[in-house]
Amino acid sequence: MNLSTLFEPQSIAVIGASTKVGTVGYTLTENLLHNGYAGTIYPINPKAETLFGLPCYANISLIPHEIDLAIIIVPASIVPLVLREVGEKGVMSAIIISAGFKETGETGRKLEEEIIAIAKEKNIALLGPNCLGFLRPSLGLNASFAKVLPSDGNIAFFSQSGALCTALLDLSKEALGFSHFVSIGNKAIIDENILLQFFSADKNVSVMSFYTEGITDASSVIETGRAILARPDAKPIIALKSGTTTAGTKASSSHTGALAGSDSAYTALFKQARIIRAESFENLIDLLSVFSHNTLPENNRVAIITNAGGLGVLATDAAIESGLRIAEFGEETKTKLRDALPPSASVSNPVDVLGDALAERYQYALERVVKDDNVDMMLVIVTPQTMTEDVKTAEAIIAIKKHYHKPIVAVFAGKASFRAGIDLLRENAVAVFSYPESSMKALGALAQITKWRTMPSVPNITLANIDKEKASEILTKVREDGRLTPTEKETSEILKAYGFPFFATYEVTTKEEAITAGRAIGKKVALKIVSPDIIHKSDAGGVILGIDPDNIGEAYDTLMKTVKKNVPDARIDGALVVEMAEKGGKELLLGLKKEPGLGTLLVFGLGGIYVETLKDVTMRFVPLEESDIEEMVQELKSSALLTGVRGEAGIDMRTLKELLMRLAEFALAFPEVEELDINPLLVFSDKENFRVLDARIRLSKEEKE
Amino acid sequence: MNLSTLFEPQSIAVIGASTKVGTVGYTLTENLLHNGYAGTIYPINPKAETLFGLPCYANISLIPHEIDLAIIIVPASIVPLVLREVGEKGVMSAIIISAGFKETGETGRKLEEEIIAIAKEKNIALLGPNCLGFLRPSLGLNASFAKVLPSDGNIAFFSQSGALCTALLDLSKEALGFSHFVSIGNKAIIDENILLQFFSADKNVSVMSFYTEGITDASSVIETGRAILARPDAKPIIALKSGTTTAGTKASSSHTGALAGSDSAYTALFKQARIIRAESFENLIDLLSVFSHNTLPENNRVAIITNAGGLGVLATDAAIESGLRIAEFGEETKTKLRDALPPSASVSNPVDVLGDALAERYQYALERVVKDDNVDMMLVIVTPQTMTEDVKTAEAIIAIKKHYHKPIVAVFAGKASFRAGIDLLRENAVAVFSYPESSMKALGALAQITKWRTMPSVPNITLANIDKEKASEILTKVREDGRLTPTEKETSEILKAYGFPFFATYEVTTKEEAITAGRAIGKKVALKIVSPDIIHKSDAGGVILGIDPDNIGEAYDTLMKTVKKNVPDARIDGALVVEMAEKGGKELLLGLKKEPGLGTLLVFGLGGIYVETLKDVTMRFVPLEESDIEEMVQELKSSALLTGVRGEAGIDMRTLKELLMRLAEFALAFPEVEELDINPLLVFSDKENFRVLDARIRLSKEEKE
Repeated sequence: MNLSTLFEPQSIAVIGASTKVGTVGYTLTENLLHNGYAGTIYPINPKAETLFGLPCYANISLIPHEIDLAIIIVPASIVPLVLREVGEKGVMSAIIISAGFKETGETGRKLEEEIIAIAKEKNIALLGPNCLGFLRPSLGLNASFAKVLPSDGNIAFFSQSGALCTALLDLSKEALGFSHFVSIGNKAIIDENILLQFFSADKNVSVMSFYTEGITDASSVIETGRAILARPDAKPIIALKSGTTTAGTKASSSHTGALAGSDSAYTALFKQARIIRAESFENLIDLLSVFSHNTLPENNRVAIITNAGGLGVLATDAAIESGLRIAEFGEETKTKLRDALPPSASVSNPVDVLGDALAERYQYALERVVKDDNVDMMLVIVTPQTMTEDVKTAEAIIAIKKHYHKPIVAVFAGKASFRAGIDLLRENAVAVFSYPESSMKALGALAQITKWRTMPSVPNITLANIDKEKASEILTKVREDGRLTPTEKETSEILKAYGFPFFATYEVTTKEEAITAGRAIGKKVALKIVSPDIIHKSDAGGVILGIDPDNIGEAYDTLMKTVKKNVPDARIDGALVVEMAEKGGKELLLGLKKEPGLGTLLVFGLGGIYVETLKDVTMRFVPLEESDIEEMVQELKSSALLTGVRGEAGIDMRTLKELLMRLAEFALAFPEVEELDINPLLVFSDKENFRVLDARIRLSKEEKE
Repeated sequence: MNLSTLFEPQSIAVIGASTKVGTVGYTLTENLLHNGYAGTIYPINPKAETLFGLPCYANISLIPHEIDLAIIIVPASIVPLVLREVGEKGVMSAIIISAGFKETGETGRKLEEEIIAIAKEKNIALLGPNCLGFLRPSLGLNASFAKVLPSDGNIAFFSQSGALCTALLDLSKEALGFSHFVSIGNKAIIDENILLQFFSADKNVSVMSFYTEGITDASSVIETGRAILARPDAKPIIALKSGTTTAGTKASSSHTGALAGSDSAYTALFKQARIIRAESFENLIDLLSVFSHNTLPENNRVAIITNAGGLGVLATDAAIESGLRIAEFGEETKTKLRDALPPSASVSNPVDVLGDALAERYQYALERVVKDDNVDMMLVIVTPQTMTEDVKTAEAIIAIKKHYHKPIVAVFAGKASFRAGIDLLRENAVAVFSYPESSMKALGALAQITKWRTMPSVPNITLANIDKEKASEILTKVREDGRLTPTEKETSEILKAYGFPFFATYEVTTKEEAITAGRAIGKKVALKIVSPDIIHKSDAGGVILGIDPDNIGEAYDTLMKTVKKNVPDARIDGALVVEMAEKGGKELLLGLKKEPGLGTLLVFGLGGIYVETLKDVTMRFVPLEESDIEEMVQELKSSALLTGVRGEAGIDMRTLKELLMRLAEFALAFPEVEELDINPLLVFSDKENFRVLDARIRLSKEEKE
C-alpha cells in the first residue's frame, strides 16, 4: 500500500467542515488552514456556500479538481455512503475521524466491516476510523483536531489512543521532533505493520515508535521488524503496550474492543520483532529523546563523567541493570586525566571531576574519554554546585557530540539553576535528563539495538525425517471421530512422526518374543502385564522394573507365574516390554499455545512440579529461527541447570534445540493445534537418552483456521 | 542525644568565616545572614576585626556570650584543636564542614577518630565532617553552603552525599517542602539512627527520608524504624541507597570510604526496618511528593478517574504492579455515575469521563467515587483535550482533597497547556505528576506503609531445649585447636544442641548391638562398615541400604561376610546403623551470613542444586520476629512448593518456622559464626521426618566480635 498521497497530499477535501466553534469539523479545518500547509483545502458541507472564505461544496463529486486526501467527519451511520463517493471520485486516501464503529458494539462492528469492504474495493488507503488524524510538522500540515503542531524531527510516531497523542504532544513539545505523528484509531485498513514498512523507507525518519493496545498480526510485525533492523540503514522501533496486567487488559478491552493477548506473549513478540518495549509512558519519551538524537553505539561500554560522586554511583547501578558495561579506560586516557584533573578527582570510570569543576575541566575530561576506543557512549552528569557553569558546560558537550559519533546523553540535575543550559542542549539535539537512572535506561535500550544487529546469524538446523503425512492422517481421524484430544497413543505417534523420542515399547505374547524385544532395546527394561481384567498392575505383581536384557526370559516367566497366582481368573493377553529411563535426566517443558488474534507461541522451560511454582519459562511465536532458540535458552533463569553446574555435564543443547525447531515446524504445519504440552521431556548429556515422558495435544474447536 | 540546640540554635559561631568571595567560609556566612535567621552570628577569624559588619573574634573562647552551635570551616589538620576549644567553651553542638577525614585515607581516618573522641568527651552533638551543613526553612536558617533555601514543609531529609543535596534542592524547589534538610557527611557522631529518632519526635515532621551509601548499624536502624511505624503517629521513612550493583558498590567505596554491604542485604534491612526503599533518585522525589501531601490510606484499593482511556489502562497496569487493587465500586456509586455521565463513559473503575469532560464532570465523578467505602485512594488523570479546563479541574481536586481524608494524586499529562493548573495544585499541597505510572508507584508505596502498620502481630514461638552451653563448649574447643571450621560431627552436635534434627546413628560392634540400634530407630536403616582401611565403602560391599528393622541382624552378618571376603586384610571396627531418609522430602537451604559492618543475615530458600541456579532465597537480619519469618516464606517464589501444589500436602510450616527461629537464636548467641550452611534440610508434611542432611559452619578470624 502506497501511503504517499495520504501523508503528502496536494489537495484535501474536508467532508463535514464546519464554522461552528468547538466542533471537530471546525477545529480540524482551522488546523489545516493555519499551520502553513501549502496545498489546497476544499471544505464540504451541504449547508454552506463558503466556509473560512473558501468555496464550499455540497458533495465531493462536485469538486472540479483531483483530490489526494479526503478527511471524513460525519456521523458514523453515513460514513459508508460518503466513503463510497470518495472512492468514486478516485481519491486514493482518506481519514475517518468519526467514532461509532467497532469500539461501540455489534452495530458499529458491522459498519466498520462495511467501510473496510468499500476501502478495499476502491483501493483507498484508509486511516481510522475513530482517530484524531495526523500531523506533519515539516509540511506545516495539521490534519487532526489536536491543538499543538509539534516540532519537526526524525521520529515517526503512531498511536491507537487519540488521548495519548495529545498528552504526548503536550509533554514532549520542548524535547522531541516528529516527521509524522499519526492517530490510527481502529486500524480498519492501515495498521502497525503497514506504517512500519512505509516509514522505514522514508529517509527523513530515523526512529519509529507506536502505542498499541493490541496487535492484530504478530508474524507480520515480527517479519517487518526484523527486516528493518537487518538493513544497513536500520531504524530502531520503540513500542508502548498497555494492558500488561489482567486488570489492565480488562480496561483495555472495554476501551477499544481489541482482543488483547497476554502480556508475556507481547514481551516475546516485541523481542522477536526487535522492537524495544517501553516500560512506561515516561520511559517512552525518554527512549525517543535518546534514540532520535544519537546514532547506534558500537558496543555497550559506557563512560560516566560527573561532578557528584553520589549520582555517579546511581548511574553506575542503573548502567549495570540496563545491560551496559562500565568502560575500562585505556592507560593513555587515565594518564591524561590524572595529569590535568585535581588529585582527589577519580580518573577511573565513573570520572569524578569534583564539585568545583568549571566547564573547562568537563571539556578536558569529555575529550579524553570520548577518544578512548574502550568507550562506546557517554553519560555526562552535572549537578548545581556553587561554581557550576551550566551554559558553558552545555556548550562543551554540544561541541564534543558534533565531533565524535558516539552517543552522548546529559543529566543536568537541576531545574531553576539550569534552565539556560538545558534549553541550549535541547536546541542542539542533545538528549538531556534530570535523573541519571532514566537516561541510563535509555542508553541501555540503544545498546540493545546494537546487540540485536550484531548477533551472529545462526544457520537453521535442517530437520530430517519428518513424516507430516502420518501426523496429518492421525489428526484427521481424531477430527472425524468428533474428538479434540488425541489418545495417549495417537499423541505419541504424532510426535514420533516429528522426530520426538519416546520409550521403546513392544507388545509380546511369548517368552521368546520378550527376549527378542529385550535384545532390540538393548538396555534395562520393565515388563508390564497386558490384561483387560487387571487395572492395578503393580498390586497384581504385574510389573517388574529394571530388568537386565539377559534376564528378560526368566523375568517373563516370573511375571506370568505371579499374575496367574494372584489373579487366577484374569485373561492375559501378553506383556509390554518397555525401555527404562536413564537416571539423572532433567525435566523440561515444551509446549505450544495459541494466542487469540496473535499466533502460536512456543513455550519452553523447567518441567515437572517446577513449571507451576517457579514459572521459569520463555516463549516465542512461530515461525522462529535458531537464533530465537539460542535467546530462549539464555533467558531461562535456570539455564545453568542445562549448561551444567557444579562440574556436572550439561545437557546436549544441539538435540534440545533441534526438538524445539521440530515443535515449531509442527505448529506451522498444524495450526489447528490449540495447545500442546510435552511435560516432562527428559534431557541428558547424551542425546540418545532424551525421552518424552508425557504429552498432550488439544485441537481448536474450529475445523481449520 | 538531644539535637535541639543543633537544629534550633539561638547563637552560631562560624569558625573560619571569610569575606573572600567564592570561599566556603564566605558563602556559608552569607547564607546565615541573608535568609531571615533571627539568632546571633559570631564570625571567627584571627585576621579580621569585623566581618560582614559584625565584630569578629580571633577565637571562640573570646566570645563573651553563650554559643549554641559552632560551624567549623578550617583545614582538617587543625579541626581537632578547634573542636576542643569549642568543647571547652561549653558549646553543645557543632558542624564540621571541612573535608579531609576518613574519605581520604589513613591519615584522615586517624584525624576522624580524634574528633570523635573529643566530641564524646565534651558531649558535643557533632554533624559531619565532610558535609554541606543543614537548612531549616521555617527558621530562615541556611547553615550550609548550598545556594537555595527550600520551601518550608513537613519532610525531614538527610543525605550522605552533599552533591545529591544540592541536586535535590534544585530539582524539587516547586514540588517539595522541608522541615530539615541535612547533609550528614562522614557521620562521625550523628548517624541515620540518631536523626530518625530525633525527627520522629518532632511534630512538624510528617515524613523522614535519607540517602545513604552504607549504613553502619543495621539492628539499631531496624529497631528504630519498626518502633516509629508502630506508634499512633507513625511517620513513613523513605531511603535511597546507591551501590546496588557490584560496579556501583566499587564506585561507592572509593567515594566515601563506607564499606557497603551487598544489595540484597540492604533490601532485607529496609523491609525489616519498615523503610520504603526508593528505586531511583526520581522515584525518591515522587515518593516524597505523595507521602508529604497525603495521609495513610485505610487499605490498598485505588480508584482511577481519567479523560483518556489509554492512560487509564497504563495506570491500571501500574496499580497492579505496585501491589494495589483496582477498587470495585458499590452499586450506589455506579448508579450515580451512570445517571450523570454521558452514555459512552465508563462508570466502572477506571472511570472514563471522556475527552470532552469539563471540570464539572470531573468534580461530579470525584465526589461520587471518593465517598465510596470501597475506595481507599484516588488517581485523577487529566490529558489536554480541546475542551479541558485545567485550572477549574485542579480547583475541583483541591476542594475534594480538603474535604475527604483519602490520598488523592493528580496526573496532569501536559506541560505547556497545564502550567496554571499544575501550579495551583502544587500551591495547595496536591501531588501532581506528568505520567500515570510513576504516581501509581508512589501510591503503592504509601499503601505498603499501611500494610506494615496493620499486619497482625504474631506471638513469638517459645524455643525449648536449647543447650547453649554444649554448643559453646564445642566451639571453644574448635578455637583452641586453632581451627575455623568444626568437623562434620562437631557441626551436627552444635546444631543438635539447638534442636536441629539429624539422622539417628549408632556405632555397633556386634550383631546384637545392631539389632538393638535398629529397634531404637524403629524404621528402615542403612548399615555402613566402619574400618580405617576402607575408604570406598560401597565398592567393598560395605553399605547396605533400606534394611527393615526386623532383618537387621541378618543384614549385619551379610555385611561382615561380604567385606571380609572382598577386603580380607582390612581391620574392621564395627558398623554404623543409620536411619534412612523418608521419601518425598523437599530440600531447603537455611543459612547465616555475616555482612561486614551491618550484622548477621539469616538466609532461607530452595536447597540442593536449585540454590545456585534459581537463587530463590530470601533473607533478614537477626534478631528477627516470627512475622519476619512469615514474610520470608511468602516472599519465596517457590513458596507454593512448601504450602503444597497439585493437591500435594504442604510441609509442616510450624516446624520450619521454629527451626528458622532456632537458627536466629544461634546466630545471636554466637556472633563469631561467620557463615553457616544447612543444605539441604529435608522437610516434610510430618514434622517427625525433618532432617538435616548436610551442614557446615565457618568461624570468623577474630576471636570474638
